Amino acid sequence: MARLTVIKVGGKIVEEPETLQALLDRFARIEGFKILVHGGGRSATRLAEQLQIPQQMIDGRRVTDAETLRVVTMVYGGLVNKQIVASLQARGINALGLTGADMDVMRSHRRAPKLVKTGELAGQMVDYGYVGDVDCVNGDILARLIGQGVVPVMAPLTHDGQGSMLNTNADTIAGETAKAMARYFDVTLMYCFEKKGVLRDADDDDSVIPSIRAAEFPALVEQGIVAGGMLPKLENSFAAIEAGVREVVITRADAIDVPGAGTHLS
Amino acid sequence: MARLTVIKVGGKIVEEPETLQALLDRFARIEGFKILVHGGGRSATRLAEQLQIPQQMIDGRRVTDAETLRVVTMVYGGLVNKQIVASLQARGINALGLTGADMDVMRSHRRAPKLVKTGELAGQMVDYGYVGDVDCVNGDILARLIGQGVVPVMAPLTHDGQGSMLNTNADTIAGETAKAMARYFDVTLMYCFEKKGVLRDADDDDSVIPSIRAAEFPALVEQGIVAGGMLPKLENSFAAIEAGVREVVITRADAIDVPGAGTHLS
Repeated sequence: MARLTVIKVGGKIVEEPETLQALLDRFARIEGFKILVHGGGRSATRLAEQLQIPQQMIDGRRVTDAETLRVVTMVYGGLVNKQIVASLQARGINALGLTGADMDVMRSHRRAPKLVKTGELAGQMVDYGYVGDVDCVNGDILARLIGQGVVPVMAPLTHDGQGSMLNTNADTIAGETAKAMARYFDVTLMYCFEKKGVLRDADDDDSVIPSIRAAEFPALVEQGIVAGGMLPKLENSFAAIEAGVREVVITRADAIDVPGAGTHLS
Repeated sequence: MARLTVIKVGGKIVEEPETLQALLDRFARIEGFKILVHGGGRSATRLAEQLQIPQQMIDGRRVTDAETLRVVTMVYGGLVNKQIVASLQARGINALGLTGADMDVMRSHRRAPKLVKTGELAGQMVDYGYVGDVDCVNGDILARLIGQGVVPVMAPLTHDGQGSMLNTNADTIAGETAKAMARYFDVTLMYCFEKKGVLRDADDDDSVIPSIRAAEFPALVEQGIVAGGMLPKLENSFAAIEAGVREVVITRADAIDVPGAGTHLS
């Protein structure tokens, strides 16, 4: 099977012109078929502030009322997505911006009210609003596009099939896409992160664990080496591997084109 | 050749939920292959106002500085485009939102400073900023998508191939698309308009001229029946016909699915 790399990049990297251009230079150097999944939360928060739309983050997720849905649709689907697409086209990469609604590539349902785990609202039930949990990915269409030389650039937006866009976490978009593509390609899923990888010692940026096998994961959790926000990331990564993804790489955005960099999960 | 209808809809129709849904119901009923081209100027103006970005319209075109380019990229490429795409998907239509940057479907160059024809600045040279005049349409890619059952939904944005998005008039996007598609399809280009068609008497909404042939056009201009904003619209329409488009229809949004309605140019 041909090789496909699904790369998720979020945070400041895609939202500041200089770091974005450096990232796309590196992205352009990655060989084989590829998909880019981006975030854009900081820009969404900034626009919401300018429009005086109060924002609420719970367990790291944005509560998405109707006004906020308009903001994220503009920022993720328009501003960030099209800047990336135009910048990739300038590098000779045939990028196509996609939300889940486009060609029905990713359908979701509105999340049911959920128990809050952390923060002030811990223990309460919260309705996240227009937030979508993914139901299905249209792998055939994505695989066909990729086979035609197209590089999908996916925004963290899905749709419910009933006419509404839904806000969906970019890590989830990347994970679900990678899993769906495992039927067609030999898939590597790469999560860009502010650290060089999973660190053995949180205070030592050079203590990257080069590889973790599924069997070794529980011990790392028990020892407290994998904790906090890294825990769900790795749980999702191993779930993707179980679903057929060959390898998940957790690395820094400035190393996506460096073979062997970061932590390799398999 | 198979039939393709390219429909341009602008103005309030695509920006108010109720009129948009009624329009899409009608669009869904049009038989054969189709493309929807939309505007979104009112929403862009509103967002620019909220963000306190001064807007300047000259000869009906928006002067597009860097901040305004961000606004139109968000509104046209994100908000309006994705609302339409999600709403069409809910009707079982496999819509795909596109700007010119996506799959490089429409490339343009930044407009050179231009002599203003009307208003306070008449006679002066004005730099419209990030406004793109179309250079080429990638007809092969559009035709292939359409052949695969995809319905392109085109935002009034192009790119310069150097990494910048450019603001491009929706009428122009529709006209250039129709011309490029004439190699592959029997194309009807439909412009939605606030009137029922080209009127013989501007004060009588029912005085629609049912058809105008190219040879009859100069006389209508001479008699003053075609004047004002309708003049460039019809000039562009006859240019499209000369370039291979079978027919151009000027009609009201509530009649796009009514055979024979409006003014038919050929």
